[in-house]
Amino acid sequence: MISIAIIGGAGYIGGELLRLLLGHPEAEVVAVSSTRLAGRRVDGDHPNLRGRTPLTYVEPGAVPEVDVMFFTGSGLDDVDGRAELRQRAKIVFDLSSDLRLGDPELFRFHYGREHPTPELLGTATPGLPELHREQLRVAELVSVPGCMATAATLALMPLARAGLIEPAVTVDGRVGSSGSGASAGEMNLHAERSGVLRLFAPLNHRHQAEISAFTGLEVKMTATGVDAVRGVQAVARTTAKPGTTEAAIRAAYRKAYADEPFVRVVAQKRGNYRLPEPKILLGSNYCEVGFAFDPDSGQLLAVGALDNLVKGGAGNAVQSLNIRMGWAEDTGLTFTGLHPM
Amino acid sequence: MISIAIIGGAGYIGGELLRLLLGHPEAEVVAVSSTRLAGRRVDGDHPNLRGRTPLTYVEPGAVPEVDVMFFTGSGLDDVDGRAELRQRAKIVFDLSSDLRLGDPELFRFHYGREHPTPELLGTATPGLPELHREQLRVAELVSVPGCMATAATLALMPLARAGLIEPAVTVDGRVGSSGSGASAGEMNLHAERSGVLRLFAPLNHRHQAEISAFTGLEVKMTATGVDAVRGVQAVARTTAKPGTTEAAIRAAYRKAYADEPFVRVVAQKRGNYRLPEPKILLGSNYCEVGFAFDPDSGQLLAVGALDNLVKGGAGNAVQSLNIRMGWAEDTGLTFTGLHPM
Amino acid sequence: MISIAIIGGAGYIGGELLRLLLGHPEAEVVAVSSTRLAGRRVDGDHPNLRGRTPLTYVEPGAVPEVDVMFFTGSGLDDVDGRAELRQRAKIVFDLSSDLRLGDPELFRFHYGREHPTPELLGTATPGLPELHREQLRVAELVSVPGCMATAATLALMPLARAGLIEPAVTVDGRVGSSGSGASAGEMNLHAERSGVLRLFAPLNHRHQAEISAFTGLEVKMTATGVDAVRGVQAVARTTAKPGTTEAAIRAAYRKAYADEPFVRVVAQKRGNYRLPEPKILLGSNYCEVGFAFDPDSGQLLAVGALDNLVKGGAGNAVQSLNIRMGWAEDTGLTFTGLHPM
Amino acid sequence: MISIAIIGGAGYIGGELLRLLLGHPEAEVVAVSSTRLAGRRVDGDHPNLRGRTPLTYVEPGAVPEVDVMFFTGSGLDDVDGRAELRQRAKIVFDLSSDLRLGDPELFRFHYGREHPTPELLGTATPGLPELHREQLRVAELVSVPGCMATAATLALMPLARAGLIEPAVTVDGRVGSSGSGASAGEMNLHAERSGVLRLFAPLNHRHQAEISAFTGLEVKMTATGVDAVRGVQAVARTTAKPGTTEAAIRAAYRKAYADEPFVRVVAQKRGNYRLPEPKILLGSNYCEVGFAFDPDSGQLLAVGALDNLVKGGAGNAVQSLNIRMGWAEDTGLTFTGLHPM
Repeated sequence: MISIAIIGGAGYIGGELLRLLLGHPEAEVVAVSSTRLAGRRVDGDHPNLRGRTPLTYVEPGAVPEVDVMFFTGSGLDDVDGRAELRQRAKIVFDLSSDLRLGDPELFRFHYGREHPTPELLGTATPGLPELHREQLRVAELVSVPGCMATAATLALMPLARAGLIEPAVTVDGRVGSSGSGASAGEMNLHAERSGVLRLFAPLNHRHQAEISAFTGLEVKMTATGVDAVRGVQAVARTTAKPGTTEAAIRAAYRKAYADEPFVRVVAQKRGNYRLPEPKILLGSNYCEVGFAFDPDSGQLLAVGALDNLVKGGAGNAVQSLNIRMGWAEDTGLTFTGLHPM
Repeated sequence: MISIAIIGGAGYIGGELLRLLLGHPEAEVVAVSSTRLAGRRVDGDHPNLRGRTPLTYVEPGAVPEVDVMFFTGSGLDDVDGRAELRQRAKIVFDLSSDLRLGDPELFRFHYGREHPTPELLGTATPGLPELHREQLRVAELVSVPGCMATAATLALMPLARAGLIEPAVTVDGRVGSSGSGASAGEMNLHAERSGVLRLFAPLNHRHQAEISAFTGLEVKMTATGVDAVRGVQAVARTTAKPGTTEAAIRAAYRKAYADEPFVRVVAQKRGNYRLPEPKILLGSNYCEVGFAFDPDSGQLLAVGALDNLVKGGAGNAVQSLNIRMGWAEDTGLTFTGLHPM
Repeated sequence: MISIAIIGGAGYIGGELLRLLLGHPEAEVVAVSSTRLAGRRVDGDHPNLRGRTPLTYVEPGAVPEVDVMFFTGSGLDDVDGRAELRQRAKIVFDLSSDLRLGDPELFRFHYGREHPTPELLGTATPGLPELHREQLRVAELVSVPGCMATAATLALMPLARAGLIEPAVTVDGRVGSSGSGASAGEMNLHAERSGVLRLFAPLNHRHQAEISAFTGLEVKMTATGVDAVRGVQAVARTTAKPGTTEAAIRAAYRKAYADEPFVRVVAQKRGNYRLPEPKILLGSNYCEVGFAFDPDSGQLLAVGALDNLVKGGAGNAVQSLNIRMGWAEDTGLTFTGLHPM
Repeated sequence: MISIAIIGGAGYIGGELLRLLLGHPEAEVVAVSSTRLAGRRVDGDHPNLRGRTPLTYVEPGAVPEVDVMFFTGSGLDDVDGRAELRQRAKIVFDLSSDLRLGDPELFRFHYGREHPTPELLGTATPGLPELHREQLRVAELVSVPGCMATAATLALMPLARAGLIEPAVTVDGRVGSSGSGASAGEMNLHAERSGVLRLFAPLNHRHQAEISAFTGLEVKMTATGVDAVRGVQAVARTTAKPGTTEAAIRAAYRKAYADEPFVRVVAQKRGNYRLPEPKILLGSNYCEVGFAFDPDSGQLLAVGALDNLVKGGAGNAVQSLNIRMGWAEDTGLTFTGLHPM
């Protein structure tokens, strides 16, 4: 058993980490912090955990030394506090966007501010097992990628590695309301968010930098909020290089993911779910990837889908933890998703 | 043309009043107030009105004398201000809950506070045309009933008047998220409000006092928030007096509403919409009422449905205005609802 | 390991049984039948199971002898076939409504037809562990109750047993579209079913007979289809006997469910989820029960919520199986539900 | 008053035509046909029209000679019958996809069959007032474009006409379930269609041929079914020619639509609805268009939104009728849309 602390446990990613780690046979959650809710029970705002834990929130300052610490929110406005907290753990998983980019200038472009500790950029291992499994086995600081970045990267990576596509790629990301967090404002009221197709980032969504870095492609990304609570779908439009065949594309996906426990290649000819969509993946750690190809025009659509809070966040973190600790990679992550849902 | 002012135009009821009155051939909206948004265009937060009006919000203090004034929010915390505003209009329609109850004690029970101007209780004519049409023709102060109260009252009133039911009635009200208003809190975030069956008032919902007063029945009311933006359905469970026949019930409804322009009696034997539900009424001023009767046990379910912002609020106010001014009762209210929706 | 066959695996209950049993460490699913889909892969219409099983559907006639057999659909129109199938298993769990009622006349009233094998009525043990755990340890034929019956029964039973309420009870059941099954007709098209509050059984819903039988109360039941895929909420309106206190009610619930692994008593004073609703239970085998009480009037609302396909169906069956086989009762049923969802 | 017949009135487009034409002061609907429902009341499956019309469906053969006839469904499988029907009207509006394309080969590519009367292709005037107003004034055969084609065309046309963009364009169309019609199959069941992001046409959606023909651009189109009943959003990704400024783009839109009664140019800097989305347009005949531009990279996103059954179908037909008859163009089309919805 290893000891775990979650810094920022009251949000949706915090709740999902709790759900997964409370059910993890090798991990013991010893502290969950929330400045706002210190002293209150964690199942108060994570009602799905009623009866599963007697934990109460503590102030961040009261978090003890642990084996593993998870950060769910940004530490950019409290650099010293974050550094101090980091000292209390042997291994740190950062689920915020603080350390996802490797370049201060790119950070400035996408986040509209200077990074206060640019020397940290590039020091974290990306928590994306399918690309960084070996580094994760020894990592001490892991940065879990953005939810849409993970979906798009897993959809595009086999094509990029196999050299089947031109570098210019557009990604259309669609995401549910839980991506806006538990303290979102009036724009996320049910009456305003219900039924939307909200192009909240019509151009240059910040995840495009992560996808570009992971795949080496030139990604332009648009993002739309849709009427769902959970779920991400990334639709990448690419052009196949001349001579590319559907068989080659299929082989590239199969090769990339043959041994991956949490990536399913989906490319049926028919059926309601012949291309990936999050509806059937909610709660699970699966990412489904698939494609559609028009050999005449060379158009190639690559699609990835996942639950933004699981494979797009907390699940990816736990999978990375399992790798780091040498446990079976699916420990605590075997839930299979629901249909219909 | 009469001049109109809307006090509190930035909320959902304010927006709906604007929508209806901007399309009303006899009314001119000359002022819309919002303390928070004074100086901003009204179509900024009522985007459906883009291109329909150049109006901007003004401070309440800048509202001129008008023929008719509509209050959308409570004036209980600003008694003097409200009284002063009221002086500037010949006729006032109050869509808040301030003046709906006739009795200070009942007000205290349901609203958990003392009414600051109890002498006003009982002075307003209820803005419920089907029950108070004659009084509305000369009213100077009109209080529009609660949305669920209107639905339940219109469903129950024919039965009560015809003496067909026992007085003890339970009402189960179901309502969409727009009923919580445009400034609702975290509990109304999409991620929290989506998919709910939230018994926000498990017992003694405040509208029960209005329904009791309108119908003379002894009403016990429960209210549930459902996953819809607009819409109210009131399901009233009653017991028919011995000897009551289905024909008598049907006759009571037909008699009550034969000449009503905005109440539709619905009691098909089959079909998806054989009992009233708001889905097909959204945007319209219709209230549908219907029933199910089991002659063996005497169980009688009376059901009413409407759009909470229209027949449950702004539409009822405009219909009452039409009556007050002697115009055709459906002026500005002819939209028929959408199917499918 | 025991061998399992599922008769009628292509529907939603069949899919849920598959999901749970494929993850069950003591059970091996050896055959899944579907007349319509024989020869096709089971993950074709249960896409959440992609990568979890290579099973294909077989004709019912090709199902081998097994330890345990689950029926998901009715056998009333094929009495001989069903009897023959039953011979091939040591233990049978029937999730259809065929054997839920004990009385042919009641069956006729609620199902509008004669039961073809009335001698079977009353021979099955109800698959409701909280009421019939001891009988289930030795049962050979188990009939799993209706989803709304389970929710209402678990909400009412503690009150009935403790003698705290009058016998006349009304139940308002709300249920998602998965309750209509995978082969539902045009009335369940998304465009028709979205946003509904459809009183599909305004009076005398058939589950009322089950609730009455389980609790000894006189239940009158109404049922509404709501805009959700999964989930049941049963709202029971009762009257407390004179002198009943909130403490006594609370004690009755605690006593009834103190040792129950899958019933959570929920009765917070505040919070979005202070009364049971299915939103946070989807996919889990929990039933949450709670209440609201007005000591002045004696009104007592008892509420139960669950996932209709899990605790309201397949999960209850697996829990009953675990009891029957002497396994830990939560084997294969530990998923905790998701929030937000 | 002119006389109107609707051929195929039982579907969703038929219902919407009925709704609009029953409220039209210059039109009298004298016949509505449905082979399946002949003899039944039209408000049976269009429940929003209860109380608005006593019409019943007739067999197509019983439709009399009229001034104007609307076809809602395809006539390709009954060429003679359709030709015969067409003889009974002076002016015909075809809302099916039969006559939308001008080229038999393109028809074969997109519809997977030979057009049985290729000589008719190219003979109909497109029912898109913003592009074909003058031709519509004298047209005798009008073909109303596809819903997503209209949204994308209105978003792209100003840019194409002003020569501001490169010809290669991708369009991502998103559409609600009403686009699948009232007789859709199991894939459109609520349980299967709820929460989807279904890429039902991942490449080469058939509307791309219409958009290309209208705009002269080289369009590649993807289409996704989303969890909404009504609504279309078309997101077109283009590249601005070098030197293009935001002011020039804005001017192109303003110039194109300054006098258009039903196109609103939306390009706010902030706000929830700063880019077009159908949520606030449902029921209205408006199309909103807007854009986002990144001058550094030249990326230009053009967005159009509308209600697929109104501006994307029946409303466009009625607007074209108004033009054809010389009536005010917004006659019968003044509904403004609802917010929140």
